Amino acid sequence: MKELVWIVIDTKGGDKGAEAMLKGAAMALEKFPQLGVVLAGDREKIAGFCAEGSLPMERVEILDAPGEVTNYDHPADAIFHKQDASMFRALEALAARDDLVGMLSCGNTGILLTAAMRTLSGPVRVRPAMAAVLPAEKGGFTCLVDTGATVDCNSAMLVHFARLGAKLMHEMYGIDSPRIGLLSNGAEPTKGNALVKETHGLLAADETLNFVGNIEGSNALSGDCDVLVCDGFAGNQVLKVTEGTARRIITDVMKYAQKTGSAEIRALGGHLMGLYDIGSLGGGIILGIEKPVIKARGSADERVVVSVAEMLLNMASNRAMYDESRTTL
Amino acid sequence: MKELVWIVIDTKGGDKGAEAMLKGAAMALEKFPQLGVVLAGDREKIAGFCAEGSLPMERVEILDAPGEVTNYDHPADAIFHKQDASMFRALEALAARDDLVGMLSCGNTGILLTAAMRTLSGPVRVRPAMAAVLPAEKGGFTCLVDTGATVDCNSAMLVHFARLGAKLMHEMYGIDSPRIGLLSNGAEPTKGNALVKETHGLLAADETLNFVGNIEGSNALSGDCDVLVCDGFAGNQVLKVTEGTARRIITDVMKYAQKTGSAEIRALGGHLMGLYDIGSLGGGIILGIEKPVIKARGSADERVVVSVAEMLLNMASNRAMYDESRTTL
Repeated sequence: MKELVWIVIDTKGGDKGAEAMLKGAAMALEKFPQLGVVLAGDREKIAGFCAEGSLPMERVEILDAPGEVTNYDHPADAIFHKQDASMFRALEALAARDDLVGMLSCGNTGILLTAAMRTLSGPVRVRPAMAAVLPAEKGGFTCLVDTGATVDCNSAMLVHFARLGAKLMHEMYGIDSPRIGLLSNGAEPTKGNALVKETHGLLAADETLNFVGNIEGSNALSGDCDVLVCDGFAGNQVLKVTEGTARRIITDVMKYAQKTGSAEIRALGGHLMGLYDIGSLGGGIILGIEKPVIKARGSADERVVVSVAEMLLNMASNRAMYDESRTTL
Repeated sequence: MKELVWIVIDTKGGDKGAEAMLKGAAMALEKFPQLGVVLAGDREKIAGFCAEGSLPMERVEILDAPGEVTNYDHPADAIFHKQDASMFRALEALAARDDLVGMLSCGNTGILLTAAMRTLSGPVRVRPAMAAVLPAEKGGFTCLVDTGATVDCNSAMLVHFARLGAKLMHEMYGIDSPRIGLLSNGAEPTKGNALVKETHGLLAADETLNFVGNIEGSNALSGDCDVLVCDGFAGNQVLKVTEGTARRIITDVMKYAQKTGSAEIRALGGHLMGLYDIGSLGGGIILGIEKPVIKARGSADERVVVSVAEMLLNMASNRAMYDESRTTL
């Protein structure tokens, strides 16, 4: 039998409760036969769900964690006084166990970021970045980094984000020399604020990066680059404006369906919702730490577990290939 | 007869040539009986068009301007060596003549901005800002300011943009105390980069402004504020990401129409294009100068003249009411 690939899931902290995470884990286990899941949360609740759902228990492990991080906690307070919280127990397991390849949590972003940097930083601690990997218009995926972890950046940080994003796209999709774009207010090299202009020079001069130049907001997700670099404030705008616009247009489509009574248009609305439901499919990936930690929306439902499990499985297999190719060089 | 309200139109500089601007002027004259237009450009071409189109010549004036500003010109070069360009002649007329209430140009943004600040600045010269007034999701309009005129801002500039935006929304729609929102990466007052946090404090402390707090990108155009304040780099992202996302989804709708052969869905696509065609309907409004100058896209077609004429007529009548109410106080 092929060896299992294990991930750890923080079952608490999401708006839809542990039930959604557990249901999602069951779906993921069914879809991916090579997957094993460590479920962090209330032992009794998880055991009860597993028994009812007749889960494949040889691929399930329970990590008891009675505590919970909430959206009202402060990072330092939570980290020092809620050591039994599922988020922290999951992070500790990820750091301690070689067999775990990644983690999913829907909990408090700020605390997850702080705790992940604390638990999983390598020898050199760097500025945290959170990436979003989104489907591109021309096909494939674009990694947007940073989406809000570091909102005040200097040019060295942006260059660092470019490297982190390139590494991620290599690990996730096996892309050899990911194309790096720089978000600006115009495609010309002279466009940008002071930060972008300075970063443009650094990226262009760096021969280890495949820099393709400035990208405007209207083409942020066109697919002209594999990694789109920006400060966390601007990246947050790209992510959320995309989401808000999609939500608005899909609402228009649904209203139009109601007005016309057209079943065809209602079907189209459903199709578009599936394509642009950024919130529930996938999540933000914390970069610059030793193993991938994926933060899904608080509002995510069970489907997020399946998509994140797939992401982490891909990354684990590409990373293994990558490490192998490096040792044979 | 009611007095005419005159605007000046730069007929050159757009991708679709003077023909589109002239055709648009004819449409606007037909739609608005109180409108008069000064057409800046090649006298013969304009006169020829007027004769053929049997325009109401008592509401048309030709401002001869043989020169043209192009996208390859540098601001200082153009301003000093192309004094006969239609853009500059139009700006000079706007500054010199009391009967002209505003101007439209599709030409080079940077040069228009520089020349407008030079020709139409009041006694105190301020940082330029360009606003976009966009339809809001809940109805009404949101003024986004700045959309790219000043990409490196400090907090005093953002407060100034708030005032300029509030004045504009008063003039355009008669809104008495426009709600000011501040673009941030979260709705909570503690969210934002250093610039936004500092600006939040200043806006909250200013009793002359109706500040309603931070607004996230996903609600940028929801209609929760009348004026959304941001630096020009972030504002450019909001504008262009909205546009890019709309273009992408409408393309999806059109592809789906083709795939299914559904006439209903094709009609929906056309409906959405009308709603989200930000490029050709309206334009950026240069703020902080003595009279409104509106910059439409280079790619705009004749319809832009009608929508901009309507904007300028509205502004002129609200401004008159405003000035009247002030003198009677």
